[in-house]
Amino acid sequence: MPETLLTFETPVIRDWVDFNGHLRDGFYMVLFSYGVDGLMDQIGLDAAGRQATGHSIFTLEAHVNFLHEVKLGAQVQVYCQVLGHDAKRLHVGLALHIKGNDTVMAYSEQMLLSVAMDGPRASPFVPNVAARVQMLATAHRSLPRPAYVGRVISLPAAKTA
Amino acid sequence: MPETLLTFETPVIRDWVDFNGHLRDGFYMVLFSYGVDGLMDQIGLDAAGRQATGHSIFTLEAHVNFLHEVKLGAQVQVYCQVLGHDAKRLHVGLALHIKGNDTVMAYSEQMLLSVAMDGPRASPFVPNVAARVQMLATAHRSLPRPAYVGRVISLPAAKTA
Repeated sequence: MPETLLTFETPVIRDWVDFNGHLRDGFYMVLFSYGVDGLMDQIGLDAAGRQATGHSIFTLEAHVNFLHEVKLGAQVQVYCQVLGHDAKRLHVGLALHIKGNDTVMAYSEQMLLSVAMDGPRASPFVPNVAARVQMLATAHRSLPRPAYVGRVISLPAAKTA
Repeated sequence: MPETLLTFETPVIRDWVDFNGHLRDGFYMVLFSYGVDGLMDQIGLDAAGRQATGHSIFTLEAHVNFLHEVKLGAQVQVYCQVLGHDAKRLHVGLALHIKGNDTVMAYSEQMLLSVAMDGPRASPFVPNVAARVQMLATAHRSLPRPAYVGRVISLPAAKTA
């Protein structure tokens, strides 16, 4: 399994499955969203941390590649890699796996923003959070950067016929 | 309101609202997913059309920009613009609005794939669907292409301090 951070795990429930009989695209993103919650828990921004600091995280932008169908009842896990950061932004990659299987079922690159909830307004990570972000960034620096990072959506070049 | 195609409308329900008190990022994507269902209905791929043709649509890839908070109870609409297509792919832009307001609350660019469900495997749009896709593409060709199309996620260039 990945050397990145396990941040969420759940079975796929019936509410998330579409008329094609598998996880609806939008709900992959709900799983990644819960994966970001799990990351927040690990950098000091769980409910108690948000309350104490008045800070939270908003998602600015996301990209997702849907790679394989995921079926009802599958036990899925979200692994998170810190790809980069600055004083108030956190660039992460999130990989969806079936538990015990190395295949990436979907991958989402996301840009997260540290916010002070009294605005809400963009605001640097508080020191305790910044230290944990730095620690993760250092730990993940040497891991390979997946091919799904930095993509642009486009139609393939036209072929004859 | 946009000249593009209205494909979904709903009030924002409690299940979709996060601990920050507004629509959770993942659920914006669920709304866009329902917006694609609405598009499918209008190009002959509603439940009856899927049954008759054995074809459906899968989402290959998506990009989303979260622009404004959306609150519990807001009446939201998804508008769809066809940005391009080929024999089996459909490139669309989806804009989330509050009903009656021109402000784009979130924007998602997506690449959709026509599939034959007996695989499932990639398969060209059936003629009736292809004709409707072509009609929409022609109707939307002259509309402006939003700035959120073709983006890459990245940290801003580093500044001093």
